[in-house]
Amino acid sequence: MKVLVINCGSSSLKYQLLNPESGELFAIGLCERIGIEGSKMEYETPANDFEIEIKQDMPTHKEALELVINAITNPEYGVIKSVEEIDAIGHRVVHGGEKFASSVLVTPEVMAAMEECSELAPLHNPANLLGIRTMQELMPGKPNVGVFDTSFHQTMPKEAYMYALPYEDYTELKVRKYGFHGTSHKFVSGVAQELLGNPAESKIIVCHLGNGGSISAVKNGKCIDTTMGLTPLQGIMMGTRCGDIDPAAVLFIKNKRGLSDKEMDDRMNKQSGILGVFGESSDCRDMEIAAAAGNERALLAENMFAYKIRGYVGNYAAQMGGVDAICFTGGIGENSGKVREDVLRGLEFIGVELDKEVNSKRQKGNVLLTKETSKVKAFKIPTNEELVIARDTYEIVNATK
Amino acid sequence: MKVLVINCGSSSLKYQLLNPESGELFAIGLCERIGIEGSKMEYETPANDFEIEIKQDMPTHKEALELVINAITNPEYGVIKSVEEIDAIGHRVVHGGEKFASSVLVTPEVMAAMEECSELAPLHNPANLLGIRTMQELMPGKPNVGVFDTSFHQTMPKEAYMYALPYEDYTELKVRKYGFHGTSHKFVSGVAQELLGNPAESKIIVCHLGNGGSISAVKNGKCIDTTMGLTPLQGIMMGTRCGDIDPAAVLFIKNKRGLSDKEMDDRMNKQSGILGVFGESSDCRDMEIAAAAGNERALLAENMFAYKIRGYVGNYAAQMGGVDAICFTGGIGENSGKVREDVLRGLEFIGVELDKEVNSKRQKGNVLLTKETSKVKAFKIPTNEELVIARDTYEIVNATK
Repeated sequence: MKVLVINCGSSSLKYQLLNPESGELFAIGLCERIGIEGSKMEYETPANDFEIEIKQDMPTHKEALELVINAITNPEYGVIKSVEEIDAIGHRVVHGGEKFASSVLVTPEVMAAMEECSELAPLHNPANLLGIRTMQELMPGKPNVGVFDTSFHQTMPKEAYMYALPYEDYTELKVRKYGFHGTSHKFVSGVAQELLGNPAESKIIVCHLGNGGSISAVKNGKCIDTTMGLTPLQGIMMGTRCGDIDPAAVLFIKNKRGLSDKEMDDRMNKQSGILGVFGESSDCRDMEIAAAAGNERALLAENMFAYKIRGYVGNYAAQMGGVDAICFTGGIGENSGKVREDVLRGLEFIGVELDKEVNSKRQKGNVLLTKETSKVKAFKIPTNEELVIARDTYEIVNATK
Repeated sequence: MKVLVINCGSSSLKYQLLNPESGELFAIGLCERIGIEGSKMEYETPANDFEIEIKQDMPTHKEALELVINAITNPEYGVIKSVEEIDAIGHRVVHGGEKFASSVLVTPEVMAAMEECSELAPLHNPANLLGIRTMQELMPGKPNVGVFDTSFHQTMPKEAYMYALPYEDYTELKVRKYGFHGTSHKFVSGVAQELLGNPAESKIIVCHLGNGGSISAVKNGKCIDTTMGLTPLQGIMMGTRCGDIDPAAVLFIKNKRGLSDKEMDDRMNKQSGILGVFGESSDCRDMEIAAAAGNERALLAENMFAYKIRGYVGNYAAQMGGVDAICFTGGIGENSGKVREDVLRGLEFIGVELDKEVNSKRQKGNVLLTKETSKVKAFKIPTNEELVIARDTYEIVNATK
């Protein structure tokens, strides 16, 4: 079984060819600057440590996907002889609205429903749909499966996902909390449940901390709350996104600065977060280096970053009536012992005993970060969204055979 | 010692004449519809249970304050012979910005500084300043003291009060979290500290729940975080205010509905909260009655209301590294056993053992709501913002004599 996983952005495309059962990764890569001058593709086959970068014009996602197919079937460095060996294609789709509470086989009806959700994610969903249409064209007859960033969060109770806005904003405009990074939260909370020994009941908090970041509360396998909202702007502080602010501040700043709505939206999404506070970079590593060197704004950004996350850990523990495991994943969550230690500081009162030595070491794979005696466990768990997409695709295609 | 406490709104004026040391209340009342047809004044002297309503035109706050002075000095039902008996006037001022970390004797310089803060509270501060100016005119030579809603929160650390927006929004526009209801949070956390037996260290969470509502975390007597922000819109769900939402939703709804910035601001401040979700009333009691009768949207509003507060209780416990007492105050906090029980549900894991019977009874004064064995105490503590204003006024006037 081989599943091709496709993650289309507006000008980029990530791909993996993998075995959904064993997790074996045959090929992985990235097309960048699609539709922009200087487009290029990275291609890698982990089994033999082969890597190549191909610089070639990609006016649209179609040329990008053709390049991907050419690479994986290349007689010299490819990993399959022909596309016939690919059993199915799994697509990441950002927004599934309220229509998609789970992954789904793509049909014309499903395509139409996904298009309706585009309104809620105008920058992402159209690119995702383009990827599906292009694959239908390039590999006709192969099953395509849509896996949504939002669907794992569809189990949230209404008191968690509703905003206290006029009710018609929900019924007429579909304004509510949806949440994102669902495949990651699903994967990591699943691993944590196993690491806890699959107890009958479990209360897990997942901190997915990358350039974008979100936290979720997963009770007995079901998401009951998450920090991102209608869009991926809400919640914790991110690389360039502000996260929670006073909603009145949006209009206050917009008016004081004479910005258009679009400019204000960009200010909150692209010029805020670590970048906005630190001022020099949106990268957590740059911030940590500068903070260690005494840069005051870097230190402030570092403190704010951990502070917000700690608040949500406390919040979600309260909403679940306790917590068994706190998990860290994503680029920052997996690699920054400093962030993890800062977040967990002061949580001894709920039973967190961090093993600082273990936490400060870089280790591959899943790592228990707390002492043996710690009532609440903390884990570092590398996420694998592509594996979730491949598994979902495999299951759905198998079930519909 | 007699202090007149004045709380000017844009078209209303609340007043109390009281003894700041004993707390004895001589007269209390309210002028409504100032500058609007049908203005009237309520006047009450609690000592002899006397109440009167005076309907009279009040084109400006000056006429309103003249009426107040006439009432308290009235030969028949007044409580003093002449205004000479009033030692000082204490004024509630909504926004003190970063300039005022404590109450202050009004001087020309202070007036100028307060005017600078008006930008941050354009609906409230001008009315407060008008009240001060009018009293200076009506009672020349008497000391006026400004007591700010924001000043108790000025001890927040920078990681708590900063938003992750571009840093210039803080330095140039003063955009940050200020917090409000400070006099109430100060008073109630002070009472709680006494009820705990004045321990050397204390971690107190105050839930001020009225038509507006905010929560604060008070560690060793100092506020370290609060839910309201740049304006009183941020934080928990309120009577007509939405509290926290995705900042991107502000622009999304505005554009989908074709609203002006002012209309969107009004939508979030005046048409949201309990009113927006329930649809029929902004009043917590109406919501509770309708929810008990099976009204689904009332029940949703009730669940959302408690859910948000519970999240912040968990959040602030995490930020303080624990909690000794959770306090409820304000109209809803003091009177709704249902809200208190809903908020505290599931918090057994941090050591809250609610005494449901005590909690469900209506009792005057300060009430311990948890069982004797409860590690974390919960209290109902009636707030008294006017007493804080009177006390601050008294202290400042005494100190400057």
